[in-house]
Amino acid sequence: MARWQPNASERLVVAALELFEERGYERTTVIEIAERAGLTKSTFFRHFHDKREVLFGGGAMAGVLADGIAAAPAGATPFEAVAHALDAAGREAFTSARREFGARRRAVIAGNPELQEREALKGLGLTASMTDALKQRGVPELTSCVAAELGALALKIAYERWSNPTGSGDFGDVARRALSDVLAAGGLG
Amino acid sequence: MARWQPNASERLVVAALELFEERGYERTTVIEIAERAGLTKSTFFRHFHDKREVLFGGGAMAGVLADGIAAAPAGATPFEAVAHALDAAGREAFTSARREFGARRRAVIAGNPELQEREALKGLGLTASMTDALKQRGVPELTSCVAAELGALALKIAYERWSNPTGSGDFGDVARRALSDVLAAGGLG
Repeated sequence: MARWQPNASERLVVAALELFEERGYERTTVIEIAERAGLTKSTFFRHFHDKREVLFGGGAMAGVLADGIAAAPAGATPFEAVAHALDAAGREAFTSARREFGARRRAVIAGNPELQEREALKGLGLTASMTDALKQRGVPELTSCVAAELGALALKIAYERWSNPTGSGDFGDVARRALSDVLAAGGLG
Repeated sequence: MARWQPNASERLVVAALELFEERGYERTTVIEIAERAGLTKSTFFRHFHDKREVLFGGGAMAGVLADGIAAAPAGATPFEAVAHALDAAGREAFTSARREFGARRRAVIAGNPELQEREALKGLGLTASMTDALKQRGVPELTSCVAAELGALALKIAYERWSNPTGSGDFGDVARRALSDVLAAGGLG
């Protein structure tokens, strides 16, 4: 299997994760992250707004989910369109090569309240992005909100299951099962 | 009608809101808020962790919602238990005497990204509190999550409708209608 060759942005993310694991999030500086990645501080800031942002992909996921919803077939229900978004997340971001990275990332976030706060806010941004994408398909506003909220919940559960050290499988499959579990739990199954 | 006599905590909230309206959130200090309320800085910090917290009730709402869910009849469905929580919010916090205050508070928050961020995180705390309260009733974990997420969405919509300058009515009624709208929008109506 070919070794995964990360680009500048991904090198920064990998370097940051290693340093957060080795010395803790608080004791790591942006300069150290850039040096570990063999890049400069200004390159770091071209990719990420601040140190808190480096594990959160700089907003790319919101676009992946919105594009996934936009690309769903014309006749798809709101929840089917959300399932397309979750598939897109698996193809574009949560590939099998990144699963072990996902588990390590999750452990680092779990250990730091500041990162947990950023993750929570990022989650709200993903919900807003899916809500907007559904509205652009002509889905009524409140239905868009509900489908996006439950889609975001399914995404969160799927990420936890997929990145779990004992987990396995393709993210799209895990996510579709999580969405179906969420809908069933709400009486929509 | 008797003039509403706020206690120390409420005097601080009213003073803060006035100052935020007059000179902006950024240009207001904790000392100024305490002085306007006729209290000391140390009294402020007995009630609120920081300036950002003063418009968010210091965590009281999470307890009100959890208690409302705990007090729902034994046979209540998860969504009925959530409706009890929304009623409790109306009785304990969003009384008709506070409706005009709610509209002003909402305008101040809408004008400041830092306050919007705090509001978003507070909303997640309310969801977590309702989820835990539902689990303590024996509701399965995922159903608790879904009911709490949709309850939090209904609470947000209800607060927007109720505190709107052109709005009217009892918060409990507005909130029950919002919850029923949310469930119908999700195909649960």
